[in-house]
Amino acid sequence: MTTPLRLGIAGLGTVGTGVVRIVQRHGDLLAARTGRPVEIAAVSARDRTKDRGVRLTSYGWEDDPVALARRDDVDVFVELMGGSDGPAKAATEAALAAGKDVVTANKALLALHGQALAEAAEAAGAAIRFEAAVAGGIPVVKALTEALAGNEITRVMGVMNGTCNYILTRMESAGLTYDAAFAEADGLGYLEADPELDVGGIDAAHKLSLLAAIAYGTRVAFDAVEREGIGAVTIEDIRAAADMGFRIKLLGVAQLTGRGLEQRMSPCLVPAASPLGQLEGGTNMVVLEGDAAGQIVLRGAGAGEGPTASAVMGDVADLARGVRVSTFGQPAATLTAPQPALSTTPAPFYLRMRLQDKPGALAKIATALGEAGISIDRMRQYGHTEPEAPVLIVTHKTTRSDLEAALTSMADTRVLVGPPVALRIEDV
Amino acid sequence: MTTPLRLGIAGLGTVGTGVVRIVQRHGDLLAARTGRPVEIAAVSARDRTKDRGVRLTSYGWEDDPVALARRDDVDVFVELMGGSDGPAKAATEAALAAGKDVVTANKALLALHGQALAEAAEAAGAAIRFEAAVAGGIPVVKALTEALAGNEITRVMGVMNGTCNYILTRMESAGLTYDAAFAEADGLGYLEADPELDVGGIDAAHKLSLLAAIAYGTRVAFDAVEREGIGAVTIEDIRAAADMGFRIKLLGVAQLTGRGLEQRMSPCLVPAASPLGQLEGGTNMVVLEGDAAGQIVLRGAGAGEGPTASAVMGDVADLARGVRVSTFGQPAATLTAPQPALSTTPAPFYLRMRLQDKPGALAKIATALGEAGISIDRMRQYGHTEPEAPVLIVTHKTTRSDLEAALTSMADTRVLVGPPVALRIEDV
Repeated sequence: MTTPLRLGIAGLGTVGTGVVRIVQRHGDLLAARTGRPVEIAAVSARDRTKDRGVRLTSYGWEDDPVALARRDDVDVFVELMGGSDGPAKAATEAALAAGKDVVTANKALLALHGQALAEAAEAAGAAIRFEAAVAGGIPVVKALTEALAGNEITRVMGVMNGTCNYILTRMESAGLTYDAAFAEADGLGYLEADPELDVGGIDAAHKLSLLAAIAYGTRVAFDAVEREGIGAVTIEDIRAAADMGFRIKLLGVAQLTGRGLEQRMSPCLVPAASPLGQLEGGTNMVVLEGDAAGQIVLRGAGAGEGPTASAVMGDVADLARGVRVSTFGQPAATLTAPQPALSTTPAPFYLRMRLQDKPGALAKIATALGEAGISIDRMRQYGHTEPEAPVLIVTHKTTRSDLEAALTSMADTRVLVGPPVALRIEDV
Repeated sequence: MTTPLRLGIAGLGTVGTGVVRIVQRHGDLLAARTGRPVEIAAVSARDRTKDRGVRLTSYGWEDDPVALARRDDVDVFVELMGGSDGPAKAATEAALAAGKDVVTANKALLALHGQALAEAAEAAGAAIRFEAAVAGGIPVVKALTEALAGNEITRVMGVMNGTCNYILTRMESAGLTYDAAFAEADGLGYLEADPELDVGGIDAAHKLSLLAAIAYGTRVAFDAVEREGIGAVTIEDIRAAADMGFRIKLLGVAQLTGRGLEQRMSPCLVPAASPLGQLEGGTNMVVLEGDAAGQIVLRGAGAGEGPTASAVMGDVADLARGVRVSTFGQPAATLTAPQPALSTTPAPFYLRMRLQDKPGALAKIATALGEAGISIDRMRQYGHTEPEAPVLIVTHKTTRSDLEAALTSMADTRVLVGPPVALRIEDV
């Protein structure tokens, strides 16, 4: 088979330029591996005149990505514009309607419209591939969809936003406050235009919802992700966690339990010596657990030109080889509507609070926990100069709902100064 | 497509039984994910009467695996007997000759006959899949062949024999001698019938040679792997390495350099804090480095019923979905004969020796190193009660050939007591 596979690339930012570079540099390699030449037919971006450091003159140009998606000389529409709606959505829909395969790095688009797009793809006999949308260069979509196809997936976990991990790592390693670490990440250009996408956990939750759909054969349910950003994590929490042998990570967990699908993205404590605990800087890590395979850990760069373009090209190579797998691993019509469940899986929790420094205050807190059926694993009260006493508690395993009940009773005691911080300790 | 995919399973040991269990337990899951039922048509093993804890009565039985491979009701021949020749080879050849796809966990078979089998498969329009042959449940063959298809691979590294890693870990954690840790692993049933396959690094070298073929588009060259087992590693080496912040691992490295293909499987020092250094017990880890993706680390169980059967079923699911990729990632005829190169990539080396306790001995050793152009990074002479002085040296980067020259000069000084231990320090 020597018919070339012709790409139409929409979006020439970091990733799009990276894809152009790989096609130009590794043409022979791609042809040898896939059995056919991989070519770029045309590209589209906002500014035609901008110097991107790659030669584009031999490719067609479209100002409108929808026109690119419909071109007769494009076999695969490569969507690297980003954004959950607007041009990315319109062009993806146009490509699928024209029966063209789509490769995308757009997690937001799929998290919000994945079901409709998967159905449109199947109706048109086209494929949607999105390895680059989750955890950059790490082949987690492929591992989950293909390699673990013989497993019932028991848990999917991951640190999937490098910017958050960078901020949390810098708070610990350099003793920075959250604001200082945030400013540093911003100065390095690590933050999205809307930083809440990163630090609010939205971007990571998009990714988690896509993995959960594959893992459990459910429709993508981004809205059902229990989500908490890292903005409330303080240097005190980082130090206290370290003191007890933990690190704080923005961790996503998806589990199918008897009650339904639990998906949460939140700052969690993980053992400092665990693979997740050891993850530094902008690196990503995904943990896949299957009933046969056991625990598989994948680690790599979660963003950047090379890694993300590598993931795009892995998908392109699959299409060139004729590999076709349903978008979320099984036909879209067979994906079930998930029953979203608030976290009922019990876990130990880390609690940090400040108490009025008067007799009986600690006893009242301990009583509130005990009455909610929560037993205490460890408690520390630190020496203090300010009038309030800083107190840390690590509970034994309890449910989120029992903990909420205890937190309400604790507030009623009126010995708390400000609201307590409660972070889950994830068993990794 | 609702035609079932019918398996013929040869070999009902741990892995074969595990595959039967997955097919029986996850029939619905496999059908939903692959779009067609996956069934077992017939099986073959040595002893028909043995109770394997799974129901086999509904499947056909063949005493002869070659007969199983030729059955008309078998679409995919699943070879789980093991052995590089004999029945496994004969049956695999028979299956391919009959145009049937083959899924195998047999690293020895492919390491020795991979090129001929890949050619036979292509001539017959059949596929050979072997995820289970390398690193158990870790999807490393898939990651390298498919996900990284857009990368020039710069290095493949891995700890791929869980038994060796168990022995080395136990020597460190429990202070056992090599012989005691070996006996413990033997008692736990971790060793192959011929233990040299494990501790001699042969099994791990089989796996490395398969990954190298995919990574560099070369014919499998198992014979060209520079190989050294773990039998010479002593508790003193483990302790001295730990003392300097390293751990000793049986590490495989494959690199394509200007001089040719370097493949080595040998005990190496790696930083204790690195992912490879932190790998404990029977777990496997593979590190893939590509020019675009950067470093990707995959970690999981390297053996055992569930993980290996999971890898087999991942391959079966791909075949059920119609995914077909060349055995080693590109057509067998296009794989080039590698130019085997002895390790020329410079590295620091760890040297342990005993010297006669007399004036000038250490100076002679240092001179021998200096004259070979090797500079010393660290040197330690330990206090001692025996007449010989134990000395440790960590060199700066040097080549294996310069080191060999230095070792020859060192022997000529006649101050050495016994031969020195020389282990590479791998930059991970």
